[in-house]
Amino acid sequence: MNRDLLGIRQLSSDQITDIIRRSDGYFLHLKSNDPFPESQILTGRTVANLFFENSTRTRTSFELAEKRLGATIATLSMQSSSVSKGESLMDTVNVINSMKIDCFVIRHSSSGVPILLRKHLPDSVRIINAGDGAHEHPTQALLDAATLIEKLGSLKGKKIVIIGDILHSRVARSNMILLGKLGAHVTFISPPTLAPKFAEEIFGVEIRNDIGDSLKNADAVMALRIQLERQSGSYFPSLTDFRARYGLTTLRLQDSNTYIMHPGPVNRNVEIDDQAADTEKSIILHQVKRGVAIRMAVLEWMFEK
Amino acid sequence: MNRDLLGIRQLSSDQITDIIRRSDGYFLHLKSNDPFPESQILTGRTVANLFFENSTRTRTSFELAEKRLGATIATLSMQSSSVSKGESLMDTVNVINSMKIDCFVIRHSSSGVPILLRKHLPDSVRIINAGDGAHEHPTQALLDAATLIEKLGSLKGKKIVIIGDILHSRVARSNMILLGKLGAHVTFISPPTLAPKFAEEIFGVEIRNDIGDSLKNADAVMALRIQLERQSGSYFPSLTDFRARYGLTTLRLQDSNTYIMHPGPVNRNVEIDDQAADTEKSIILHQVKRGVAIRMAVLEWMFEK
Amino acid sequence: MNRDLLGIRQLSSDQITDIIRRSDGYFLHLKSNDPFPESQILTGRTVANLFFENSTRTRTSFELAEKRLGATIATLSMQSSSVSKGESLMDTVNVINSMKIDCFVIRHSSSGVPILLRKHLPDSVRIINAGDGAHEHPTQALLDAATLIEKLGSLKGKKIVIIGDILHSRVARSNMILLGKLGAHVTFISPPTLAPKFAEEIFGVEIRNDIGDSLKNADAVMALRIQLERQSGSYFPSLTDFRARYGLTTLRLQDSNTYIMHPGPVNRNVEIDDQAADTEKSIILHQVKRGVAIRMAVLEWMFEK
Repeated sequence: MNRDLLGIRQLSSDQITDIIRRSDGYFLHLKSNDPFPESQILTGRTVANLFFENSTRTRTSFELAEKRLGATIATLSMQSSSVSKGESLMDTVNVINSMKIDCFVIRHSSSGVPILLRKHLPDSVRIINAGDGAHEHPTQALLDAATLIEKLGSLKGKKIVIIGDILHSRVARSNMILLGKLGAHVTFISPPTLAPKFAEEIFGVEIRNDIGDSLKNADAVMALRIQLERQSGSYFPSLTDFRARYGLTTLRLQDSNTYIMHPGPVNRNVEIDDQAADTEKSIILHQVKRGVAIRMAVLEWMFEK
Repeated sequence: MNRDLLGIRQLSSDQITDIIRRSDGYFLHLKSNDPFPESQILTGRTVANLFFENSTRTRTSFELAEKRLGATIATLSMQSSSVSKGESLMDTVNVINSMKIDCFVIRHSSSGVPILLRKHLPDSVRIINAGDGAHEHPTQALLDAATLIEKLGSLKGKKIVIIGDILHSRVARSNMILLGKLGAHVTFISPPTLAPKFAEEIFGVEIRNDIGDSLKNADAVMALRIQLERQSGSYFPSLTDFRARYGLTTLRLQDSNTYIMHPGPVNRNVEIDDQAADTEKSIILHQVKRGVAIRMAVLEWMFEK
Repeated sequence: MNRDLLGIRQLSSDQITDIIRRSDGYFLHLKSNDPFPESQILTGRTVANLFFENSTRTRTSFELAEKRLGATIATLSMQSSSVSKGESLMDTVNVINSMKIDCFVIRHSSSGVPILLRKHLPDSVRIINAGDGAHEHPTQALLDAATLIEKLGSLKGKKIVIIGDILHSRVARSNMILLGKLGAHVTFISPPTLAPKFAEEIFGVEIRNDIGDSLKNADAVMALRIQLERQSGSYFPSLTDFRARYGLTTLRLQDSNTYIMHPGPVNRNVEIDDQAADTEKSIILHQVKRGVAIRMAVLEWMFEK
């Protein structure tokens, strides 16, 4: 049974629940101080991590998940690779695949690359989307949902606010789809310039340009990362202005009991105030830990016989 | 019994045949979808990959070969290393070797570096040349020969055409020597500016500056890579002109039954037309797969007791 | 029993002797040509190597030590990481730690970073200082001491000369503290501009600005590395001048029977003449080999139950 993780869109709610459930045992090991128990799940299997975008944390999370399941791994940071010698993406992937790769984990700045790989590679090769353009980032949405379920129980009817740069965010998009499948109510809040364009898909999603009292009744709020390195004042007047209108400030959170989440890396005192990031309602590091567990669960699910 | 792979020149035809034969079993595993069987051949052994030239594909091929044989590996991309702090090559190698290295895999832009290492390092340390300047690239020639034998049987009297930048090509040079030892007939085709200078060694090699009807009777043709990043019109008028005169174009191949090979990465529509690269006579990915098998076979052969 | 290696300062002389003694068995294996015996000491344990400063040799030494003890490892070269995206050091460390890290090995250009980590991370996480600013480099001092003990026996009353850029050297500082604890007599020799500023700590250390006859009676001399890439004539007139006044020249060593050491990478014919670096009294590569053994011993000591 060969399975892929191309996006949340391709998963049923049963599959989502199955993967989250599988992650529970791994999560317990991750919280323990004992040695991680040996696993044979990926013994003799090779996972290739193709990172066309730099990402220390996501790459490390995948690598540790793979190694702890016993995989042989090859990580290719593709900025300095054959691609720079003019080779096409599919030629590169075909070459690496010829070395017997059982699973590709791919991150790419262009939307749709994992689906392109699925079309071209043999059925026996599994594919995990580790983030493609502004399209999907399914393991992030799965780890977010697993974290939310742990804190809130069933997500049916729960109020989840996602705030910030929705327009460019694959995290927002995967979360919107997943949370919709599990019955949560999603509110997007962003500057008008960073509001979503994929309106046709956002059934059931509420879109706002101001926070108002959204946080008061929210069960959880996810702040998205402002890509400082990409945005030079073109989408909002200044970081100070962004914080004033869309930041999770201490003031704004004081009457709220919401959980605070962020996919990282956090720009402190832009998206989230220092103090807010470190309260016990902040479950940002919890998300990271769950991330390794989810990636192990996805691999286990994919390689199930 | 400590063996090295410094170049094809140092191998007898029996040794070549022995290594190719050993690669057959690994190649079968590489074609299978089953987990790769565990191997103890390099258990407790450390292989250091010293890459003074960038090469994602060759480095990954070696690393996977080593890991699948159970080795502990250390890969050092030496552009960002102590070398840039002014340490001499041999000091760097001596330092790494003091950490107990059983085998060095070395790629370097200067011809002769693996031989230099052989002179300086203790006998107990094995050395594999992973490409040195314009000198040799023995694992490439071995994988090419293994691929050819699989397709053509004995190479005695077979007609192999090598086309492109012969002058700078260690691939051409190692192939010439190997194919000569196995009795094949080699034709070099290149612009006059890129013709070989090592004429004293090319006994039995035919040198031409035009393709003419060479492809008609060829059993296999290897297109070499044009180093786009190095050549700015100094060796031929333009890429369009190169393709017109030396490219494996669809037109040129239409009356031929030759196998098409390339050491990669391919510049599509320069050395090989898109359509030609993807026909069933193109065995470029086959070469890549055989490459991992050959590297495992070389390591097995080196560490044989 | 959770132990850290933040600096030599925190170790008792008994602990120092214990770690050095533990390294002896590993050192024997490192000198042998046999496969390295398998170890379960770090099975199921994850070691994260956080290198905020580039260091091929130290990083490789740690990685091989960890792998040979059976650890799962994650190496993060932090120049190209989230840090460049503006994330704070402690946020980065907290994120990586959430992936279940049993031990951090950290190198950083700022003094005190390992101590900062110790304050913030849970007790269950071990920390090894792999060099912090001009502060400490404890594994280097331990490997130096182990090498000296092997050559000289007890260090009580032995005369050790350390020469060169004392001011910026964490190696000098850790050695001074360690050698003091084991009862050796330390002499620092440097240009006045590169003399130590931590005078309050150098009890028992003799400070000189000229070599004089220091080498005649020295049991060992350690030359420190001149940071060519950082110093442009601001601390001494020229490299030629430095060599003339502070270099371990052949002439200067000819009446001495001292052992010659260097933490590497060596600038040949600056700190040490070519000929002197390669005599049998030069034990520079011996230091490197002992370095892997010491790092294995430190890990064994840390993870002792």
